[in-house]
Order: sequence, then C-alpha cells, then structure tokens
Amino acid sequence: MSKAPHLTFDLDTPGLGRGHLVVPAGADCGELSLPVFSLNKGEGPRLLVTGGNHGNELEGPIVAWRIIKWLPEAQTCGRVIVLPVLNPLGVQAWSRNTPLDGLNLNRVFPGRADGSVTQRIADAVSRVLLPMADTVFDLHSFGPTWDFPPAATTHPIADPDLMARTVRMAEGFKLPLTLVWQHNDTAGMFDITAQHQGKVFVCTEFGGGTVGADSLAIYEAGVRNALIALGLVEGKAEYPTFRQQRSGQTLETRPSDELKSPAAGIFEPRRSVLDEVKQGDLIGILHSIDSLSAGSIDIRAPEASIVLAIASGAHVEVNKVVALIARPLK
Amino acid sequence: MSKAPHLTFDLDTPGLGRGHLVVPAGADCGELSLPVFSLNKGEGPRLLVTGGNHGNELEGPIVAWRIIKWLPEAQTCGRVIVLPVLNPLGVQAWSRNTPLDGLNLNRVFPGRADGSVTQRIADAVSRVLLPMADTVFDLHSFGPTWDFPPAATTHPIADPDLMARTVRMAEGFKLPLTLVWQHNDTAGMFDITAQHQGKVFVCTEFGGGTVGADSLAIYEAGVRNALIALGLVEGKAEYPTFRQQRSGQTLETRPSDELKSPAAGIFEPRRSVLDEVKQGDLIGILHSIDSLSAGSIDIRAPEASIVLAIASGAHVEVNKVVALIARPLK
Repeated sequence: MSKAPHLTFDLDTPGLGRGHLVVPAGADCGELSLPVFSLNKGEGPRLLVTGGNHGNELEGPIVAWRIIKWLPEAQTCGRVIVLPVLNPLGVQAWSRNTPLDGLNLNRVFPGRADGSVTQRIADAVSRVLLPMADTVFDLHSFGPTWDFPPAATTHPIADPDLMARTVRMAEGFKLPLTLVWQHNDTAGMFDITAQHQGKVFVCTEFGGGTVGADSLAIYEAGVRNALIALGLVEGKAEYPTFRQQRSGQTLETRPSDELKSPAAGIFEPRRSVLDEVKQGDLIGILHSIDSLSAGSIDIRAPEASIVLAIASGAHVEVNKVVALIARPLK
Repeated sequence: MSKAPHLTFDLDTPGLGRGHLVVPAGADCGELSLPVFSLNKGEGPRLLVTGGNHGNELEGPIVAWRIIKWLPEAQTCGRVIVLPVLNPLGVQAWSRNTPLDGLNLNRVFPGRADGSVTQRIADAVSRVLLPMADTVFDLHSFGPTWDFPPAATTHPIADPDLMARTVRMAEGFKLPLTLVWQHNDTAGMFDITAQHQGKVFVCTEFGGGTVGADSLAIYEAGVRNALIALGLVEGKAEYPTFRQQRSGQTLETRPSDELKSPAAGIFEPRRSVLDEVKQGDLIGILHSIDSLSAGSIDIRAPEASIVLAIASGAHVEVNKVVALIARPLK
C-alpha cells in the first residue's frame, strides 16, 4: 500500500507554520518534499498561492518568496497557504514539462495517487491543499521567448456567478491586463479542478522574456493588491507602473486570434504588447534566411485589435504562432 | 579536390549587388549558400557587416536586413558588404554552437578549408570577404537568458593605435554602453583574425532577453550612427533612448568581475543593468527550493561598480555566473 500524500505540520494551529507537502514515492522516483508556508490568523478568507507549476516560469516562485517575507507583518485575518514550487523537477531542468515522465503538470489535474510523479504531485495538491482554500492564485508567466504584459487571467466559466466573481478577483490584482482567455486545451488544468469545487481561481501570467528586478516589483505589487482586495491585508491598492503607464484593462482573446508564420524564417517583431492596431497594420515581418531577393513577408493585423503577445525575434518553422491579438471584454 | 569558397557575383561592379557566399561541401554536409548584399559607391571606407555568428542571437540578422532596406538611398561613398546570417545551421536550431559539429563559429577563426562545416564557414569569410574590408561590424547580442544594455564592445588590443581607433569606432555607435571586455577565452575569435590584419573590428552586444520592436529600433540607430561616423552615410548621429535615458558611457570589465552563485537554487535579480552600486549593495538573492527555513543567500556587490549584466531569474547550479560588474575605462 502506498503512503498517502500529507503535510508535515498542522495548518489548523494558529500563527505561522512551515513544513512540507509530502508527495509519496512511486515506481519512477522517490518521495518529494515540497516546502509549504502557512499563516493562520483565524476567521476570514482562505487562500492558496502556488508557483512553479511550469518549470521555466520562475516569476511565480520568486514572488511567492517575497510575499512570505512580509505576510507575517501584514496579514490581519484568515489563512494563507503558499507553496512556491509545485514542480521542483521541472524547475531544476528549466522545463515546462516534467522531464521524468514528459507530462505538463497543468494538464493532469486532479492527478492520480498511483500515477507517475507529475500525476502524484497534482493528486497531493488536489487532495491535501485544495480543500483548505476558497480562493487559489496559481502564479504562471508566459515563458522566456515571448513578450507579454503582466496579467491576471481566467478561462470562460460556465457558471455566470463564479465567472463574475473570478473576473472581479482577477481585476483586483490591478495589473496592466486582466484577460479572459478562451482556448480549447483546458482538460486537466488546475483551474478546472478548483472551479468544479466552486472556488475562485486566478491564473496570473507574469509577463514574458527574462525575469528582471523591475518586472518582479510589478508582479509582487499585483499579488499585494489582490490580498488587499480579499481583505487579508490592509492598505491601498495601486496600479503599478508598466512601461510608463499606470492603468489596467480587461480584454478577451480566442483561438482565432493567433497569428501564425506564413513560412519558415526569422520573425522580426514590429509591435509591442498592448499596442492598439488597426486592420492591416504591420505586426511583424518574416525573413527568409536563404535569399535576399526572395524578400520578406509582412504579417498584418486581421482586424482592429490590441497586441496581446508577440514572439521574440527567432527562427520559426511555418505555421507557428508569432503573435496573439485581443479586444475589450464585452 | 574540393571547390574553393567563392562569391556568386562580382563585388567590384559599381552599384547594388546581391548573391551568395558559397561555402564548399565537406564530409559532414553539402554546399552552403549564404546570402550577401553589397553596395559599391566607389572610393571611401570599405565596411563588412555580419550577423548570426551565434544562432540564438537574432538581433544581428534583423538589424542587417533593416540596413539593407535603406542603404541604397543613404550610402554616399565607399563599399558596404552585408552578410546577415553567418551560421544558418545554428540559426535554424536556435543554438549558439553549430549542432552538426558542436563548434562555436566565433572560436574557430580563421577556419579550415578541409575542416567541419563551422570551420569551412570561417574559412570562406576569412578568405573571401575579410580582404575586401578595412572595418568589420560583427553583430552579436548577449543571449536570451540575460539582461544586458545595448553595447559596442572590443577586447583589449596589444597595438595601442589600433586599440584607440577601435574604441573610437565603438563609441561612434552612440549606444548606452561602449565596453572594453577583458577575458581569457579569445583564441579563434573573428576579432583576432581581423585585428591581425590591422582592421578595426567592433563586436556589438545588442542587449539580452527577448528580441522586441523597441530594442531593435535602438540597435538599428546604433549601426546608423556608426555608418555616419565612418562617413558612409550623411546625417546627424544621436544617442537612442534606452530606459528613458539618452546617453553613453565607456566601461571596462575583467574576469574577476563575474559574480557567481554560492549554491544551487533559483536566482532572483534585484538590480537592473547600468545601475550604480556601492560595495555591499544587494545584487540578487539565491533561494533554496528544498526548504523555506534554510533561507536564502544574498549576493552583494564586492566593490563600488556598475551592473553590466544580470541573469534572468532561473534555477542555477552552484558556481554559475549570475551577474557581471564593470567600471569606467581608465
């Protein structure tokens, strides 16, 4: 009989707690011990904050450690549980998926106790931590090869009341972008498991590209704003300054908003994220590396929209997504 | 007998020329044809511009294509040869080294006619193109996992006259940073081969991280400034705006200026490039992913200096370079 996933400390004890979430050993690897922080100040909102779901999105763990530093001084009520690194195997390999079993942790929820290591992590989180929270912030980012604005996101949710509460919570981060993201590959996401249990789940997308000091300050401010919005922390929520602006907007994007490379070549981005574009405006250029006279192909905006994400200049194959557009949420 | 490397068109014909530099086939792969642009306006400076030396530094090829677009209108004298992609095999694989033979093109100059493909590329450039130029700009960048300011760089050169002319040329880019970079791994660099022939060679380091539209405009302005400084193009050279500033400074850095990770963990950058720091100032933090109570390790400035480069937040092993510092050139 395999051991059940468990915590090494009691979260119901008042005050500060530190310990581990133990993910049992399996055929593929030994037991994992994931560091967990908890601060129990009695009655009030019950929040779970997770990071490092994808191993090449390190903004989440860093912001989680920053929050842990000042929460003991700042939190006035309720309970906050923080698990900075959900997938240490992915983080150590700087890999989106877990190298050991090739699985994407954010596609195997609610997990399996008798599965491979990625499925066992999901199972431990789903069974041990998720029941202890009413609200979940899973701290993602857009990855190292994209430019993306600091954002709090959700997928569309069938229950209109939960959808409204989720969008309101996401807007509480006061990041430059709140995004309703419609896409077709949502089976097994952490969001879905939490939402089936009626919980408010916000997935942040903390920008893209390198993880730098200026950006981290914006992301930390976003989580602090959300803690204030929940009533866990006192203070004044403020829009952080992103590229000389202090503002937020709520947008939606769909699968048809992906712009793809018309051929193989080097993609040259010509726009920045959150730029407003008119139909036909130049978004980027695709250059052939085989011939100067074969010329280059312009990639243009299919409609009036806002640039949501733009790929880094890089060599791409044909039919690869190089930009995403979005529009104001109706 | 192997075919010799050659051009498919005559660079001495006045006016615009487009064709290929042919790198002969070898045991490891067939013939390569590298697109080449040439604009011959008679007497004057003779410049060679190359990009894509390292396959994951795509700023160079993109800026090279941008220059090719407006040079026919702008160039008033002399000859400019542009080879946007030196290493198409590296570019297609988004790899610093050539996947086929594992070699770093910028460590095999002057190359070998009977060598592996990377050595044959170096040989073709050294024998066919280099003799046609007095000045070379090789457009590099610092790679996707670093923050780095837009810079024109050189290594120290033994000949004081060539050193002075090289630094002056690098300063002619009017980028935020001109850098004299002392390091010990220079054997086989393109610079060395060109400098042995008395040529002025500037290696740009066009920033780090994602390749975005705003940054590309700065790099393009830098090359335009350098063309004006050479007298190839008329116009007014101007410092481009980088992070709200328009200025340039000349710094030097040495091997002892590398700051390394004291343990394995996630590196959190706490400073941005070109920040001035005092001795003991916090540069970054290294976080253990195994334990919250093991705490974190501060990485501090060993002396008053300027932050030259800082690594992206990422999981690092022990003793990995996470930051570089520099100081004003004496």
